[in-house]
Amino acid sequence: MIAFCDTMTITEKILSEANKKVVKPGEIIEVDVDFVMSHDGTSPPAIRSFEKIADKVWDREKIAIIFDHNIPANTIGSAEFQKVARNFSKKQKLSHFYSHGEGICHQVLPEKGLVEPGMVIVGADSHTCTYGAFGAFSTGMGATDIAMIYATGKTWFMVPESFKIEINGKLSNDTSSKDIILNIIGKIGSEGATYKSCEFCGKTVEEMDVSGRMTITNMAIEMGGKNGIMEPNQNTLKFLSERTGKNPSEFKIFKSDHDSQYEKEFYFDISELEPQISCPNDVDNVKPISKVTGTHIDQGFIGSCTNGRLEDLKDAYEILKGNEIHSDVRLIIAPASAEIYKKAIDLGYINQFIESGAIVCNPGCGPCLGGHMGVLTKGETSISTTNRNFKGRMGDSESEVYLSNAKVVAASALKGYIESPSDIRLE
Amino acid sequence: MIAFCDTMTITEKILSEANKKVVKPGEIIEVDVDFVMSHDGTSPPAIRSFEKIADKVWDREKIAIIFDHNIPANTIGSAEFQKVARNFSKKQKLSHFYSHGEGICHQVLPEKGLVEPGMVIVGADSHTCTYGAFGAFSTGMGATDIAMIYATGKTWFMVPESFKIEINGKLSNDTSSKDIILNIIGKIGSEGATYKSCEFCGKTVEEMDVSGRMTITNMAIEMGGKNGIMEPNQNTLKFLSERTGKNPSEFKIFKSDHDSQYEKEFYFDISELEPQISCPNDVDNVKPISKVTGTHIDQGFIGSCTNGRLEDLKDAYEILKGNEIHSDVRLIIAPASAEIYKKAIDLGYINQFIESGAIVCNPGCGPCLGGHMGVLTKGETSISTTNRNFKGRMGDSESEVYLSNAKVVAASALKGYIESPSDIRLE
Repeated sequence: MIAFCDTMTITEKILSEANKKVVKPGEIIEVDVDFVMSHDGTSPPAIRSFEKIADKVWDREKIAIIFDHNIPANTIGSAEFQKVARNFSKKQKLSHFYSHGEGICHQVLPEKGLVEPGMVIVGADSHTCTYGAFGAFSTGMGATDIAMIYATGKTWFMVPESFKIEINGKLSNDTSSKDIILNIIGKIGSEGATYKSCEFCGKTVEEMDVSGRMTITNMAIEMGGKNGIMEPNQNTLKFLSERTGKNPSEFKIFKSDHDSQYEKEFYFDISELEPQISCPNDVDNVKPISKVTGTHIDQGFIGSCTNGRLEDLKDAYEILKGNEIHSDVRLIIAPASAEIYKKAIDLGYINQFIESGAIVCNPGCGPCLGGHMGVLTKGETSISTTNRNFKGRMGDSESEVYLSNAKVVAASALKGYIESPSDIRLE
Repeated sequence: MIAFCDTMTITEKILSEANKKVVKPGEIIEVDVDFVMSHDGTSPPAIRSFEKIADKVWDREKIAIIFDHNIPANTIGSAEFQKVARNFSKKQKLSHFYSHGEGICHQVLPEKGLVEPGMVIVGADSHTCTYGAFGAFSTGMGATDIAMIYATGKTWFMVPESFKIEINGKLSNDTSSKDIILNIIGKIGSEGATYKSCEFCGKTVEEMDVSGRMTITNMAIEMGGKNGIMEPNQNTLKFLSERTGKNPSEFKIFKSDHDSQYEKEFYFDISELEPQISCPNDVDNVKPISKVTGTHIDQGFIGSCTNGRLEDLKDAYEILKGNEIHSDVRLIIAPASAEIYKKAIDLGYINQFIESGAIVCNPGCGPCLGGHMGVLTKGETSISTTNRNFKGRMGDSESEVYLSNAKVVAASALKGYIESPSDIRLE
C-alpha cells in the first residue's frame, strides 16, 4: 500500500491505490480497473468499439456481461443485441456471463462475489454507483470508455471532490432507506452533487443492512454524483465474506480520515422522516407523502436495482398480506435477482403477491425504463420503487411516475391512490 | 330440449339446441351465444365496432375480457389497447374482467367456472376451440362478429360437417396428448379439416385428464377445424363441478349418436407413438423426433394455452430436476394461469426451474406470438410447446420454431439440441 496523507477521503484513498500514488481532487489520473460490467443494452455498442481496437480482452476474469434490461428479449432488436453479446462472451471466454435471467447487473455482481471493498469498478450503466455500498469506488461510463477498458483494463478519471453526507436517527415503521436518499436528493438537488463523490456516513448508515445501503448509493447518480460510497460496516463484511469466500481481513478496506477534506458537508436526522415521494417529472421534486396522499394511480411497480431486494419484497408482503389490490390498479413485482426470487418463493411472499392480484415477473429491470413489462400510456400514473421519474421514463411522454419505498407502493396499490402504509396498518 | 333425430353428432345437437330446432350440416343458422370472450389484443377493435351500433352490452354476465397477449403492457400501444378495454369493462360493468395477469384466456375461462358442456362459446381468438374439451361448441371469430355478439348475444354459423377422429392406445412415457394432436395434424394436414367439426373420441380420449384433452381441442384450428369437441368424461365433469359449483346432473351433456353421420372418419392408435415434432414453417410438417434429434436450438419455451398447465410443468420438472440447462440455451417458462403458477410454486417446480437456469415469466401468452418475452432474431431456433410455427411467428422471418411436448422442450434445453426425454432419463 502507498503512504496516504491523513486528510483523505475513502474515495481518494481507493483512487490513489489504483493510481499507485497519492491523488488529489481535480487531478486527472489513469487507473487500473478491477472489474468492468456491461448489460444487454450497453454491451453491443461497447463490443463494436472494442472490435475496432483489439482482438482479445485484457482479462476475461474481470469482465461481466449481464442481461437484465430486456430479458427475455422483447423485440427482434433486443434479441439481436443479446446475440451480439452472447457471441462476444463466448468468443472471449468471459468467466462472468449471465444471460439466463440471473437478475439485475447491480444485484448480480455482489451476489456472485464479484464486488469487494477498495475495488475500482466501472459499468456501462449509470447506476453502477451502487457498489459504493460495499466500500468500492464504482461509477458508470459510456460504451466507448467501456470498450477501452475491455481492451486495456485501464481508464482515466478526474479525481472528484467529496461531499460528506452524514445520516443519523432511526427510521420509522413506514419508511426505509429509500426515504433517506429521496430526502437527501430533494435537499441537494438533481445537479447538486454533479461529479462529486457522495460519501454517506453516520450512525444510521453504520448500522444499516446491505440492502438499505445499496438503495442509497444506487441513487447517488440522481444528484449528479460521480460515485456514492460508504465505509464497509459489519453487515457488509459478513455479506461479502459469504459471497467471496474470503475472510474480511483479506479485503482492502479504506476509511476516510478524521480530518478528511470535503467540499461540502450535509447532516440529516431522519428520525422524524415521513415517507418521501419523488413527484413527476424530476427525481428531486420530493415531497412528504402527506402532501400527495390521494393522488390517483393506475400502476404500481416494486422492483429494480433500487428496491427489488428481499427486504423490499418483505416490506410489500407485510402490507399486502391478506389484502387484495384495487381493481383499477395493476401491481407489477419483479425480484431483482433469481436468488431473491427463489428466497421470496420459500418465504411465501410470491404466493401472497399472486393471491393479492399482483403480476410477478421474472427477475430483471422490468418496467423501470419503459421498455416492456408495464409500459404506461398517455394520462396514466405509476408509483414505483425505481430511481427515475423523468418525463416519459416508463412510457408515453404524458404519463407520470412517482417514486417511493416498497411499503408505499404496496399500500397505494391496495387503495388506488397514493396512501401511507400506516393508514393500511390501522385498518 | 328439442327432439333430436338419432344420427346426430354432439356438435349438431349443441347447435340445434342453440337454434331451438334441429339443424343439419351446411345449413346457415342463427344462435344464441352462451358466452363470449375477447382478450387485450382483440377487445379494442371489437369495442370500436360495438360502439357504433350499441350503448349497452346484451348481458354483462356473459362477456369476459382477459388480458393475456401483452401483459404487462410491452409498448405504449398495448398499454393504450388495455386502457380501452379497461374503460369498456368498467363502463359496461362486466362481471368477468381479468386484467391482473390471471392467465391465458383459454385457461382462465374454465378455471373460473365459465365453461359448461353444451354451451355455445365464441371468442375473439382462434384457439377458442379449446373449450370443446368440456363438451362445449366453441370457436373463434373476428372483432366485428364479436361486436355483434356484445350487442345482441346472437351470431350465425353454417353448421359444420363433422370429422370423427378416434384415438386408442396408451401413451409412452416420453409423449403426451400434444404428440397425439401433432400426429393427427401431420396426417390430416393444415387445411385437411377446414370448417369441419373435429370430434375426438376413443378410449384414449375417454380416459384422458382435462389438461391433455384441452391440448388436443386447442389445436383443432391448426388443421382448419371450425371447432374441436369431445364428449365430457368423468375427469371433465369432476373438474367442471368443482369450478362451477354445480352438480354434473345440471349440465347439458350431449353425446354423438351411435349412427352419427361423419363426413370422414379417422382412426389413430397411439401406443407406438414416439414424440412428434412439428418442424418449420408449418404445423403439419410433423416428424417423429428421431428424424430431427440433434437439431441445434437457441431457445426453449414451455407455456401457452396448449401446454402451460400444471401437468406440462410437472413433465418439465421431472426432466429438469437436478439438471442445469445448456449455457447456450435460454429456457423460458410461463405458467398458463396465476392459479397454475401458485400450485407450481407449492409443488417446488418453480424453484427447480430457477435452479436449473430457466427464466420463469408471469402467466400469459409469453413469447408464443412473437410479441415479447422471448422474441427470436435472425437465424435463431426455438423449440416450443406452443401451437404455431409459421414463418416469423416468434420473431424474425428468418428464425425457426419447432413444436413439441413439454418433456421434449425440457430435454432439449438441457442438451442445446433437440433431444428425446428418454435419452435424458437414461443418463
